[in-house]
Formats: sequence, structure tokens, C-alpha cells
Amino acid sequence: MADRHDGDIDVVGVGNALVDVLTQGTDEFLVRHDLVKGTMHLVDADRATALYAAMGPGVEISGGSAANTMVGVASFGGRAQYIGKVCADQLGEVFRHDLRSTGVGYDTSPSVGGPPTGRCLILVTPDAQRTMNTFLGASSELGPEDVDPRVIARARIVYLEGYLFDRPAAQEAFRHAARLAHGAGRKVALTLSDPFCVDRHREAFAELVDGHVDVLVANEAEICSLYRVSDFDSALQEVRRHSEVAALTRGPRGSVIASGDLVHVIDAHPVEELVDTTGAGDLYAAGFLFGLSRGLDLATAGRLGSLAAAEVISHIGARPMTPLHRLAGAVSR
Amino acid sequence: MADRHDGDIDVVGVGNALVDVLTQGTDEFLVRHDLVKGTMHLVDADRATALYAAMGPGVEISGGSAANTMVGVASFGGRAQYIGKVCADQLGEVFRHDLRSTGVGYDTSPSVGGPPTGRCLILVTPDAQRTMNTFLGASSELGPEDVDPRVIARARIVYLEGYLFDRPAAQEAFRHAARLAHGAGRKVALTLSDPFCVDRHREAFAELVDGHVDVLVANEAEICSLYRVSDFDSALQEVRRHSEVAALTRGPRGSVIASGDLVHVIDAHPVEELVDTTGAGDLYAAGFLFGLSRGLDLATAGRLGSLAAAEVISHIGARPMTPLHRLAGAVSR
Repeated sequence: MADRHDGDIDVVGVGNALVDVLTQGTDEFLVRHDLVKGTMHLVDADRATALYAAMGPGVEISGGSAANTMVGVASFGGRAQYIGKVCADQLGEVFRHDLRSTGVGYDTSPSVGGPPTGRCLILVTPDAQRTMNTFLGASSELGPEDVDPRVIARARIVYLEGYLFDRPAAQEAFRHAARLAHGAGRKVALTLSDPFCVDRHREAFAELVDGHVDVLVANEAEICSLYRVSDFDSALQEVRRHSEVAALTRGPRGSVIASGDLVHVIDAHPVEELVDTTGAGDLYAAGFLFGLSRGLDLATAGRLGSLAAAEVISHIGARPMTPLHRLAGAVSR
Repeated sequence: MADRHDGDIDVVGVGNALVDVLTQGTDEFLVRHDLVKGTMHLVDADRATALYAAMGPGVEISGGSAANTMVGVASFGGRAQYIGKVCADQLGEVFRHDLRSTGVGYDTSPSVGGPPTGRCLILVTPDAQRTMNTFLGASSELGPEDVDPRVIARARIVYLEGYLFDRPAAQEAFRHAARLAHGAGRKVALTLSDPFCVDRHREAFAELVDGHVDVLVANEAEICSLYRVSDFDSALQEVRRHSEVAALTRGPRGSVIASGDLVHVIDAHPVEELVDTTGAGDLYAAGFLFGLSRGLDLATAGRLGSLAAAEVISHIGARPMTPLHRLAGAVSR
């Protein structure tokens, strides 16, 4: 595992540690439970229990946005480490096992006696869209004390999940990690995570992007929300003035990478069959950050992102099923 | 749920309540860990922990042979009830939720403070075969006190899992349920579960089939093991002398149903693509038992079994994804 070595880590991700519970859902179910299709809702323990009781049978699979991204980095052959909080319970053990068994280093100590391991109840509607209901549970207990300065100092890129902003202690862990990284001369990357997450924390995110973040990853809805604009090009022009590097994803329309005067327009990687869009953004980030950490140019890093996203949307689940280093040959070498 | 009503239950299943943990495995992994491909191994807590540590990332999904069968019965529109033991922990809650949400009645009280909810670590090799490693955990705490005489008396068929014979208290629950059923004038059905399970309990099974079981469900390897013969026809001739009704499954070669002088040879239902054989036997039993409970003739019941098996092997997982009552029209009406 990455943490057993003294050398550089390619990317360390900090995020909400969650186990996904995937079930089939109908549009009528979403309406009845007041859920907006395709977005992430935060739910408390009572609401999570009520929704779970109303949902059909599920499948449990380890998730968490930044954790998925770290699995992608490891799948490319990169050295990845994860920081996020589970409880010392069965789902926490499942999360830990699944992450470590993919080669990602993971040493955050589990919480004991507090809320259980966080979970994301995901309703997949017949149109292949997913509507997420996140009970943060133990993940929101992550605090600055969980961020090991030695790990941050060894990581070429520290990747932070916008979702962390939904709880004060986790937000403090986030800021602490960013400070440590810059103190050690390392890069800080941020994903905005979700347009509603941006809504909840717009000013804080704008200030971060301006002053504390080197690499911004966002999709079209998120970047438009950040700058309160309605079209992609306006958001692109805004972000170029505020972020050193920005990778903006647009689903089937590919991605745009901007850095000062450089602007690359990268096509989406072809997909034989679109099965499940879960994890597309997480895996794009994996390819892009892996590329940057290995010193590849922006366009090549973007193509690795597209490749990883294409792999993950061609099957169920948010983590790659084919080793990405095997697919990457044609793109980067 | 079925148990809320006073009328007849079609089938009540008694079995080991397990959560499956599915992972990709290689032939080399099986050899290294001394596992026989395609069979079920019982493992203790230490071995389960060691195997899990060596396995790749997994997906958790509710399982248990008789529980899968009850989900199939409910999917045909039947009234199904399940008796099996979980612990009062997270995986136990997952098991309970998934079963009830499919419409199966389930009221067995969970154990508290003993071993955790049982699980089955399943390695799926590239040839689509599955090798199972079962840690029984709380499921082996099932005892006669968990078998509610009122439920048994209301069930047209009581279906018992051979796997229950692997622990004394569960074996006693099994015999208790059979006695209660016959005392109430109901039918008792048994599945042999696994050739190695038959090896472990051959004499007890032979005695049960002779004297206490009305309907036997077995696959070719199991029935050959029971009678220590090497060819299917010899086993068929044996079973006709010992069992009132026997349904013998043969994978792609279909099934043979024998009852006294009646012998029906039923073709396998065509499958567009074989994806995962997990649950084929469990779902064959679902269709067959549902048919018998509704008074259909043996051949029609067998065709419902083939139909349900075909559905479940055309996707990942051991429980149906398409409501079986929708598919059944062409077979039974």
C-alpha cells in the first residue's frame, strides 16, 4: 500500500467515506418523496431510515466521490491515498476492505460509538439516471486531526471534495489539508461535487478557487452555479480569470481544460453502451489528476480523464472494472 | 406482508440467512486458497476474515438459498414467508430490508450479542462460475423456538434447505418444522443444497427423503451423491423408489420430474445470454414450488421452474430482476 513507502504519493484524496446502496426506482417514487432527479440530497438519520424502508431491495457497494477517484488513480498505476471517516462497524469494514484491496492506502482511524458509517441511498430510474440521498453519518466526524501532515507532504496533489463543506469539522479538515499542502510546496485540487453543494457554499468556494486551489474540477452545472451564469462559455471565461487550471466536464460533449491562455477542447471517449453514469465525474478526475501528477500535458491528462469516465459509465458502479493502465496505452504513450 | 393475513401461505422457506459478498476471482486464487471451483465451503470466522482480506473489492447483496427461493415465489405472485436468523447488526438489517421489500413475510427475531450476520464470500471466476465460502455466523443460531407453529400450519408447502444440517440447532429447527407441517396436513419439500452438503449428511438425508419429505429438489451432482451413483439415470431410478415427488435439475439439459410412474422431461428455458449461474437452482425451486402450491400439474410447475431459472441466470445476482408473474403467462395460462 502506498502509505508503507516513503516516496511520493501521486494523489491523496480527502472526502466523505460512504457506502452506496443502489436500488431501482421509479419517477413516481421520486415525486412522492420530493426528490429532484439526478441530484444529491443530504438526509438525516430519520429520513434515511424512512427512505430505506420505502425503497426496494438494494445492492451495497463502496462509494464516496473522492474515494472512487483514488481507486481510479490506483487503477492507472498511480500511488493513491485516501483520508475519510467511517465508523468501526460492518459497513465501515466493507468500505475499508474494498478501498485497500484496490491498492489505495487508507489509514484514517474509524470513529467509535458515534453515528454509523455514512451511506448514500441511490435510486436508479429507468432512464439510467441516479438520484442520491446521502446520510453522512460517521463521514462528517472527519476533523483536522485526521489529516496526517506527513502524508500530505508526500503527495504531489491533494484532492479535496466539495461535499466536505457540508459539515464544519470536515470543512476545517479540508482547509487544514490545503494549508499543509501549500506549506509543503504541493498542489491543491478541488472538485465542486454537485450544483446544490455549490449553492450551499458559493462564496466559500469562490474564495477558495481564487486563492487556495491550483486545479479545479467541475461539471457544467457546477461551474455555471458557481458563477451564477446560464451558459457554459460565460462560465469558462470566468473561471479562466480565477483558477490556475480548470477541467470542466460536459458529459457526452467532452471536456474543456483551461489554464491561462491555454484552452483545450477534449472529446468524450467513445462508449459502446451507456449503462450507468454513476462515477463519470469521479473517474474523469482520476485520469486528469493522475496525468497531472505524472507531468503529462493538460490535453493528455484530459484524454486520460475521458478514457476513465468512458470505462466507468459502460457498466454498473462507480469504480473501474478493467485496469485503467491497460486501456491507457493508446492515449498517453 | 404474508404474515399479516390469516389465509394460506403458498410456501414458507426455512434456511440460512446470509448476505452474499460477490467479488471477481482468478483460478490461481482458488488454487492458492485450496478452494474447489463451483462448490460451497463452510468457513469459520478466522478463515472468513483471512479470505476477505485476500479478496478484491466486493458487492454486498442479500442471499441465502431458501430466501432467494421465497423471493422467487413472491415474484410469481405467491404468498411467501421466510424463517432464518440474522444478528441485530447492519448486514442483518440489510437482509431484513431486502427480503421484506420484495413482499416476502419475515419475522424471525434477530440474535443479539452472538456472532454477526452470516455471509457468503463468492468468488466469480472469468468462466462465470462461482465458488462460495460461507461463514454461517448468526444463521446457525436458528433453533426450534424460531419456527412458529401457526405459520407452518398456514403454509401449503414448507421448504427446507439442506444447508441447515450443518449445525445441530438449525437441524433441530428443520426437523421441528417438518413435524409441524405434517401434523397440520401440509407438504414438506427439501433441497439437498450442495453435493458436499450431501456428503456430510448422506444417511440423515436418505432417511428424511424416505420417510419425511414429500417433494425433493436436487441437481444432478447432489442426487448422484445421495445415492452414490455416477450417472443420472441410476439416480433417477433410485429416487423414484424413495420420494413421492422429485424435481431434478440438470443445468442446460433441463430437468426431470418424477412421481411414481410419472416422469416428465422438461427442457431448459432458452436464455439469450448466460451471465451468472448464481441462484439457478434456487429459482427453479421457486417456480416449481409455486406451481405445486397452486395446484398446477407437475410438468407445468417444472416449466415455471425453468422459466425462473432462465431469468435469474441472464443477469448478475440470485434474485429475479423482472417480475416472474409477468413472464409466466405463456407457460401456465
